Amino acid sequence: MIDFSAIQFVDVIEFIGTFAFAISGIRLASAKKFDLFGAFVVGLVTAVGGGTLRDILLGVDIFWMHNSFYLWCTLFALVFVIIFHNYLIHLDNTFFAFDTIGLALFVVVGAEKSLDLGFSPWIAVAMGTITGSIGGVIRDVLINEIPLIFRKEIYALACVIGGIVFVSLHATNSVNLVIIELSTATVVVLVRFFAVKYHLSLPILKGERRKKLPH
Amino acid sequence: MIDFSAIQFVDVIEFIGTFAFAISGIRLASAKKFDLFGAFVVGLVTAVGGGTLRDILLGVDIFWMHNSFYLWCTLFALVFVIIFHNYLIHLDNTFFAFDTIGLALFVVVGAEKSLDLGFSPWIAVAMGTITGSIGGVIRDVLINEIPLIFRKEIYALACVIGGIVFVSLHATNSVNLVIIELSTATVVVLVRFFAVKYHLSLPILKGERRKKLPH
Amino acid sequence: MIDFSAIQFVDVIEFIGTFAFAISGIRLASAKKFDLFGAFVVGLVTAVGGGTLRDILLGVDIFWMHNSFYLWCTLFALVFVIIFHNYLIHLDNTFFAFDTIGLALFVVVGAEKSLDLGFSPWIAVAMGTITGSIGGVIRDVLINEIPLIFRKEIYALACVIGGIVFVSLHATNSVNLVIIELSTATVVVLVRFFAVKYHLSLPILKGERRKKLPH
Repeated sequence: MIDFSAIQFVDVIEFIGTFAFAISGIRLASAKKFDLFGAFVVGLVTAVGGGTLRDILLGVDIFWMHNSFYLWCTLFALVFVIIFHNYLIHLDNTFFAFDTIGLALFVVVGAEKSLDLGFSPWIAVAMGTITGSIGGVIRDVLINEIPLIFRKEIYALACVIGGIVFVSLHATNSVNLVIIELSTATVVVLVRFFAVKYHLSLPILKGERRKKLPH
Repeated sequence: MIDFSAIQFVDVIEFIGTFAFAISGIRLASAKKFDLFGAFVVGLVTAVGGGTLRDILLGVDIFWMHNSFYLWCTLFALVFVIIFHNYLIHLDNTFFAFDTIGLALFVVVGAEKSLDLGFSPWIAVAMGTITGSIGGVIRDVLINEIPLIFRKEIYALACVIGGIVFVSLHATNSVNLVIIELSTATVVVLVRFFAVKYHLSLPILKGERRKKLPH
Repeated sequence: MIDFSAIQFVDVIEFIGTFAFAISGIRLASAKKFDLFGAFVVGLVTAVGGGTLRDILLGVDIFWMHNSFYLWCTLFALVFVIIFHNYLIHLDNTFFAFDTIGLALFVVVGAEKSLDLGFSPWIAVAMGTITGSIGGVIRDVLINEIPLIFRKEIYALACVIGGIVFVSLHATNSVNLVIIELSTATVVVLVRFFAVKYHLSLPILKGERRKKLPH
């Protein structure tokens, strides 16, 4: 159960991020005619999958095992999709904003947790990226599609760049943690925003039958 | 190696469940023209995949790493499928019964192990469900199909309901553990049986192009 | 960062194996039009996926978390594929040799690590097989194909046979470890080589509609 008396700004952000990630999973599951339970599972996995793999790799307790918040948040997202079913498409810009906020938060959490545990900066970058992007990969595997982030506009790269900002500022030992967190989140949001706005994407590694080199 | 001198009723149940889960994996792999090793792996993963993820999430030793029983049981299932290849379809009702018994046992084991480790009741419900259903999800991912439990008749929900029965009776502190186990197993079997008999399934979360709301 | 002053023969072998596994992932990702980041991730997962699952199951620190070697090695493989894009097909025999050397090494590492940790011989065989083959399975799941090793010429079986050689020689308590390692690697290489040369494969477990038994 959630203790509503101690809700802070970061909890609101975490709710927004989890909610947006869960919504994305539930909507893709619904497009594949999953039943309610299946949609719930895909939503939950999208929201917590990245952090779960991060915690397994870091060898620490899985973050959602001691907090039912993520379960309730996914349930709320499911009810939201059921009720506002026909209006969701008009909310695409809102969901994009929420999703990007969630991504930024997940990168910060992943990088910070890794450094706190004493891992190297490059592991912190990797864990920030895993926290932000692996939930979507598992979602796409479950709905039997090639993971979108491997082919679409810059998404994982926003995590990598954000992670590098985090560990770089952290390495100076002179920047306040809140400033580091906000800077990282801002960079993730900006990279993602401009990538989508200007349809920026990474070069595709072309198949070997082509006559020309890919670059 | 198995110590045959100490076989108890619960071992027989565990054999039946593991055998039935492995058979389901091997049969689906054979429909996809997997070789013998591939079929064996898919059978093994179907049988132990749920419990493996449960133990990883709970942070405890993986249950099958100290007991080769599951390996032998899957090997026996493979030999069984090879020999009785053409007669399996006539055994579908038997396999359904075995599979349901296995499901019931796996839910009991998952919920009980979680509570024993001091986790919350809702984690116990989640772990009972994961133990019972994730093996089939990994099986379906490996054979490149959308996981059946997300679209078919009630399966995972039987786990959830069974898990709730387990933790509810356990919370009373006044019911004998064997009674709790048998009640949980009975509920799982009944829910699954009636779901299949009456073709009960959860509502499908319809795609967003539809004009009507799904409910 | 890599300490180049202490590079030994086994490091060269490990580089060759990791490089070959990463190349195989990157090439398959490029055939599916993945972007550079996606190809990098698939390459990395192919190279380290098996050892990662092994370490999760064994309950020990993940091997690549304290050594950025595998990341650099995959990055080098990516650059190699980008530059030598049109010539890769002429190197297929070289890649096959590298891949087989890598497979042999991974089996040795997986089996040895398990025995060192006090696990049973059959777990050592299983972990040698997992180390050698699961990277390719995850690769195939990510590119949305049925895992090749479940249908193609003998691959996983080479791991199993190599693992059995390792634990058998180890159980004698009278063979030098280096001899055990070299014997195991030689057996894996020979089994894989002859399987490919003579197109040996395991019998396919035929679907149930066929009139004849599969054997």
